Amino acid sequence: MADDYTPPKVWTWDAPSGGQFANINRPVSGATHETALPVGEHPLQLYSLATPNGQKVTILLEELLEAGHAADYDAWFIDIGAGDQFGSDFVAINPNSKIPALLDRSGPQPVRVFESGSILIHLAEKFGAFLPASGPARTETFNWLNWQMGSAPFIGGGFGHFYQYAPVKIEYAINRYAMETKRLLDVADKRLAVSRYLAGDELTIADFAAFPWLGGLSLGLSYAGADTFLALHEYEHLARWANELYARPAVKRGRKVNARDGLRERHAVSDFDGLEL
Amino acid sequence: MADDYTPPKVWTWDAPSGGQFANINRPVSGATHETALPVGEHPLQLYSLATPNGQKVTILLEELLEAGHAADYDAWFIDIGAGDQFGSDFVAINPNSKIPALLDRSGPQPVRVFESGSILIHLAEKFGAFLPASGPARTETFNWLNWQMGSAPFIGGGFGHFYQYAPVKIEYAINRYAMETKRLLDVADKRLAVSRYLAGDELTIADFAAFPWLGGLSLGLSYAGADTFLALHEYEHLARWANELYARPAVKRGRKVNARDGLRERHAVSDFDGLEL
Repeated sequence: MADDYTPPKVWTWDAPSGGQFANINRPVSGATHETALPVGEHPLQLYSLATPNGQKVTILLEELLEAGHAADYDAWFIDIGAGDQFGSDFVAINPNSKIPALLDRSGPQPVRVFESGSILIHLAEKFGAFLPASGPARTETFNWLNWQMGSAPFIGGGFGHFYQYAPVKIEYAINRYAMETKRLLDVADKRLAVSRYLAGDELTIADFAAFPWLGGLSLGLSYAGADTFLALHEYEHLARWANELYARPAVKRGRKVNARDGLRERHAVSDFDGLEL
Repeated sequence: MADDYTPPKVWTWDAPSGGQFANINRPVSGATHETALPVGEHPLQLYSLATPNGQKVTILLEELLEAGHAADYDAWFIDIGAGDQFGSDFVAINPNSKIPALLDRSGPQPVRVFESGSILIHLAEKFGAFLPASGPARTETFNWLNWQMGSAPFIGGGFGHFYQYAPVKIEYAINRYAMETKRLLDVADKRLAVSRYLAGDELTIADFAAFPWLGGLSLGLSYAGADTFLALHEYEHLARWANELYARPAVKRGRKVNARDGLRERHAVSDFDGLEL
């Protein structure tokens, strides 16, 4: 509680803030430069990066392909450290300048789809998969999908930032977000103690949304030291679910799309040939 | 940058943290006591509070009624300062212990609906209103709805917390979240410069989701001093949209449901008689 800062009347953008992401955080939106994004042969053009939010979508796409749907896609690498998300063509698809962003060119006019949750809904409704068409199971899927969308910022932008990425360790902020992250892990753990998947007996987009965040934590894939710091071994039912998902070939493939240690770009099923998953 | 804290190997819950909300933040989930929630005569039973997330739902319900839909509802006051959200009946509806929570008793079995975004989708699909049934306009509605769900934690849990509620003013955290809040305001402002509503020409649940947060900021209803601190006068198009929504009678009514300065409970259209809106 050492800080006795008094904020000014008017906030000003004085200096970069935000540790290793300082160069990509800005108080204004919009394009900084003109770009033309590449377009491949498939109707679905994905512009993304294998962060947890990016993985949600590539996992769903690979699961759709695994299930026999015509969901083939081109995935292009967006280097957020280099500012690709501020290029004019990217901003035209996602005015919020975040990955993942999808252009669906299967209709008469291209349709922009942004925010990972919206892309999951768009693809699930398009292919009629991983989202019940009606009834209580549909509602329960949206319950957990929205829970994931509304809570991930406390994990990534909160815990991950202050525990790992921020240039200074702030005790108050680390405590705040560690507590909330543990609470969220416990919500999932208690749910998965009584339900095979988040929304019930069926695998849904709610699982694909939650896996890269909560599953990543549970499997020790997220932040160095977090498995001990957050006592992740306490969440047995979450671990059961995370291991089940992680064993799925489509999940393994999805995690490696737009990844520096996987496929930087993905254009065909055969692109995975010879890649260690 | 005064803090030179070194986190322990294992996080422990030592002391309450979180300013005025310290007593309601916990690292575990689940019920703390047995409760039986009240149930009224309408099929829709809402358990909520007039925070921004609560207002999203009551605004939609009042708009549905205004448009002639059979969306009458009972709204019950959940006192989050007193821990009502940790009662067993509330947790059975929302295992995440947050308002708003809805029980839809119109079908053969009651259906639980939690997370404001999920409640908006459930009601919009149930009544066929404020969410296009298909096509690009549906996708664009989900784009902006998910944008709102994924960004509000940076405004409320981030900016609002560190600027107003936290027990100590931390310069780094205030700068981090002020910058992101301004960026989000600018995203909305640029969108509303070219579009009447967030998802296009039609009013949708994306507007009802965003209004209590971004509209509340724009109208000076949210945090003391924030209008000057964030230079909210810069966002003219956002202000145009916020004022248009704020002028709607249903929006005015929705803001006053489950409010200490409005209707603590709401059970009938006539409950608003004589209330200053």
